[in-house]
Amino acid sequence: MKTKATFYHAGCAVCVAAEHSVVNALDPTRYTVELVHLGTDKSRVKEAEAAGVKSLPALVMNGVPFHINFGASIDAVK
Amino acid sequence: MKTKATFYHAGCAVCVAAEHSVVNALDPTRYTVELVHLGTDKSRVKEAEAAGVKSLPALVMNGVPFHINFGASIDAVK
Repeated sequence: MKTKATFYHAGCAVCVAAEHSVVNALDPTRYTVELVHLGTDKSRVKEAEAAGVKSLPALVMNGVPFHINFGASIDAVK
Repeated sequence: MKTKATFYHAGCAVCVAAEHSVVNALDPTRYTVELVHLGTDKSRVKEAEAAGVKSLPALVMNGVPFHINFGASIDAVK
Protein backbone atom coordinates (compact mmCIF):
# COMPACT_ATOMS: atom_id res chain seq x y z
CA MET A 1 0.00 0.00 0.00
CA LYS A 2 1.28 3.43 -0.90
CA THR A 3 1.93 6.12 1.67
CA LYS A 4 -0.01 9.30 1.24
CA ALA A 5 1.82 12.62 1.07
CA THR A 6 -0.14 15.86 1.03
CA PHE A 7 1.35 18.98 -0.50
CA TYR A 8 -0.33 22.15 0.73
CA HIS A 9 0.38 25.24 -1.29
CA ALA A 10 -0.92 28.68 -2.17
CA GLY A 11 -0.23 28.77 -5.88
CA CYS A 12 2.78 31.02 -5.30
CA ALA A 13 6.03 30.91 -7.26
CA VAL A 14 7.89 29.36 -4.33
CA CYS A 15 5.13 26.75 -4.08
CA VAL A 16 5.32 25.92 -7.78
CA ALA A 17 9.10 25.53 -7.62
CA ALA A 18 8.82 23.15 -4.67
CA GLU A 19 6.12 21.16 -6.41
CA HIS A 20 8.05 20.84 -9.64
CA SER A 21 11.32 19.86 -8.01
CA VAL A 22 10.75 18.13 -4.70
CA VAL A 23 7.18 16.84 -4.89
CA ASN A 24 7.45 15.57 -8.45
CA ALA A 25 10.64 13.76 -7.46
CA LEU A 26 8.88 11.53 -4.93
CA ASP A 27 8.83 7.86 -5.78
CA PRO A 28 5.43 7.16 -7.42
CA THR A 29 5.70 3.46 -6.59
CA ARG A 30 5.70 4.24 -2.87
CA TYR A 31 3.83 7.52 -2.53
CA THR A 32 0.51 8.93 -3.60
CA VAL A 33 0.66 12.70 -3.58
CA GLU A 34 -2.36 14.93 -3.12
CA LEU A 35 -1.93 18.58 -4.09
CA VAL A 36 -4.09 20.96 -2.07
CA HIS A 37 -4.31 24.64 -3.05
CA LEU A 38 -5.35 26.31 0.17
CA GLY A 39 -5.94 29.61 -1.57
CA THR A 40 -8.84 28.09 -3.50
CA ASP A 41 -9.79 25.31 -1.09
CA LYS A 42 -10.03 27.09 2.22
CA SER A 43 -12.04 24.24 3.71
CA ARG A 44 -8.77 22.32 4.05
CA VAL A 45 -6.93 25.01 6.03
CA LYS A 46 -8.07 23.58 9.36
CA GLU A 47 -6.74 20.14 8.43
CA ALA A 48 -3.39 21.61 7.41
CA GLU A 49 -3.11 23.54 10.66
CA ALA A 50 -3.98 20.41 12.63
CA ALA A 51 -1.05 18.69 10.91
CA GLY A 52 1.23 21.49 12.09
CA VAL A 53 1.52 23.44 8.85
CA LYS A 54 2.63 27.00 9.62
CA SER A 55 3.63 28.21 6.17
CA LEU A 56 3.32 27.22 2.54
CA PRO A 57 4.41 25.28 0.70
CA ALA A 58 4.46 22.30 3.05
CA LEU A 59 4.52 18.59 2.50
CA VAL A 60 2.86 16.43 5.15
CA MET A 61 4.16 12.87 5.33
CA ASN A 62 3.12 10.41 8.03
CA GLY A 63 1.49 13.26 9.92
CA VAL A 64 4.67 15.33 10.04
CA PRO A 65 4.84 18.73 8.28
CA PHE A 66 7.88 19.58 6.19
CA HIS A 67 7.91 23.25 5.27
CA ILE A 68 9.81 23.75 2.04
CA ASN A 69 11.24 27.24 1.71
CA PHE A 70 8.78 30.02 2.48
CA GLY A 71 6.07 31.19 0.13
CA ALA A 72 3.35 32.42 2.46
CA SER A 73 2.16 32.12 6.02
CA ILE A 74 -0.87 29.89 6.39
CA ASP A 75 -2.59 32.93 7.89
CA ALA A 76 -2.43 34.53 4.45
CA VAL A 77 -4.84 31.98 2.98
CA LYS A 78 -7.45 32.14 5.73
CA MET B 1 20.92 9.63 -16.65
CA LYS B 2 19.87 10.29 -13.09
CA THR B 3 19.56 13.76 -11.65
CA LYS B 4 21.73 14.52 -8.68
CA ALA B 5 20.16 15.84 -5.49
CA THR B 6 22.37 16.95 -2.61
CA PHE B 7 21.05 16.93 0.92
CA TYR B 8 23.04 19.21 3.23
CA HIS B 9 22.48 18.66 6.92
CA ALA B 10 24.00 19.14 10.34
CA GLY B 11 23.11 15.85 11.96
CA CYS B 12 20.34 17.52 13.93
CA ALA B 13 16.99 15.96 14.81
CA VAL B 14 15.17 18.15 12.29
CA CYS B 15 17.73 17.10 9.67
CA VAL B 16 17.29 13.41 10.43
CA ALA B 17 13.50 13.69 10.20
CA ALA B 18 13.73 15.41 6.81
CA GLU B 19 16.18 12.81 5.58
CA HIS B 20 14.06 9.87 6.69
CA SER B 21 10.81 11.23 5.31
CA VAL B 22 11.42 13.50 2.36
CA VAL B 23 14.86 12.54 1.07
CA ASN B 24 14.30 8.81 1.38
CA ALA B 25 11.04 9.22 -0.52
CA LEU B 26 12.75 10.50 -3.66
CA ASP B 27 12.46 8.24 -6.67
CA PRO B 28 15.70 6.20 -6.83
CA THR B 29 15.17 5.47 -10.51
CA ARG B 30 15.42 9.19 -11.32
CA TYR B 31 17.57 10.67 -8.56
CA THR B 32 20.94 9.99 -7.01
CA VAL B 33 21.08 11.54 -3.57
CA GLU B 34 24.27 12.61 -1.89
CA LEU B 35 24.11 13.23 1.86
CA VAL B 36 26.54 15.87 3.10
CA HIS B 37 27.00 16.43 6.84
CA LEU B 38 28.34 19.97 6.99
CA GLY B 39 29.10 19.64 10.69
CA THR B 40 31.76 17.04 9.93
CA ASP B 41 32.62 18.05 6.37
CA LYS B 42 33.18 21.78 6.64
CA SER B 43 35.03 21.82 3.33
CA ARG B 44 31.63 21.61 1.61
CA VAL B 45 30.12 24.67 3.34
CA LYS B 46 31.31 27.04 0.62
CA GLU B 47 29.68 24.91 -2.07
CA ALA B 48 26.40 24.83 -0.13
CA GLU B 49 26.43 28.60 0.32
CA ALA B 50 27.17 29.06 -3.38
CA ALA B 51 24.01 27.06 -4.11
CA GLY B 52 22.02 29.43 -1.92
CA VAL B 53 21.72 27.28 1.19
CA LYS B 54 20.93 29.50 4.19
CA SER B 55 19.86 26.92 6.75
CA LEU B 56 19.91 23.19 7.29
CA PRO B 57 18.57 20.79 6.34
CA ALA B 58 18.40 21.76 2.67
CA LEU B 59 18.02 19.77 -0.49
CA VAL B 60 19.64 21.19 -3.62
CA MET B 61 18.08 20.01 -6.87
CA ASN B 62 19.06 21.39 -10.26
CA GLY B 63 20.99 24.14 -8.52
CA VAL B 64 17.99 25.33 -6.52
CA PRO B 65 18.01 25.13 -2.71
CA PHE B 66 14.94 23.80 -0.91
CA HIS B 67 15.17 24.44 2.81
CA ILE B 68 13.14 21.84 4.68
CA ASN B 69 11.97 23.07 8.07
CA PHE B 70 14.68 24.69 10.17
CA GLY B 71 17.36 22.81 12.03
CA ALA B 72 20.28 25.21 12.08
CA SER B 73 21.63 28.24 10.30
CA ILE B 74 24.48 27.45 7.95
CA ASP B 75 26.52 29.90 10.03
CA ALA B 76 26.32 27.41 12.90
CA VAL B 77 28.43 24.86 11.04
CA LYS B 78 31.18 27.21 9.93
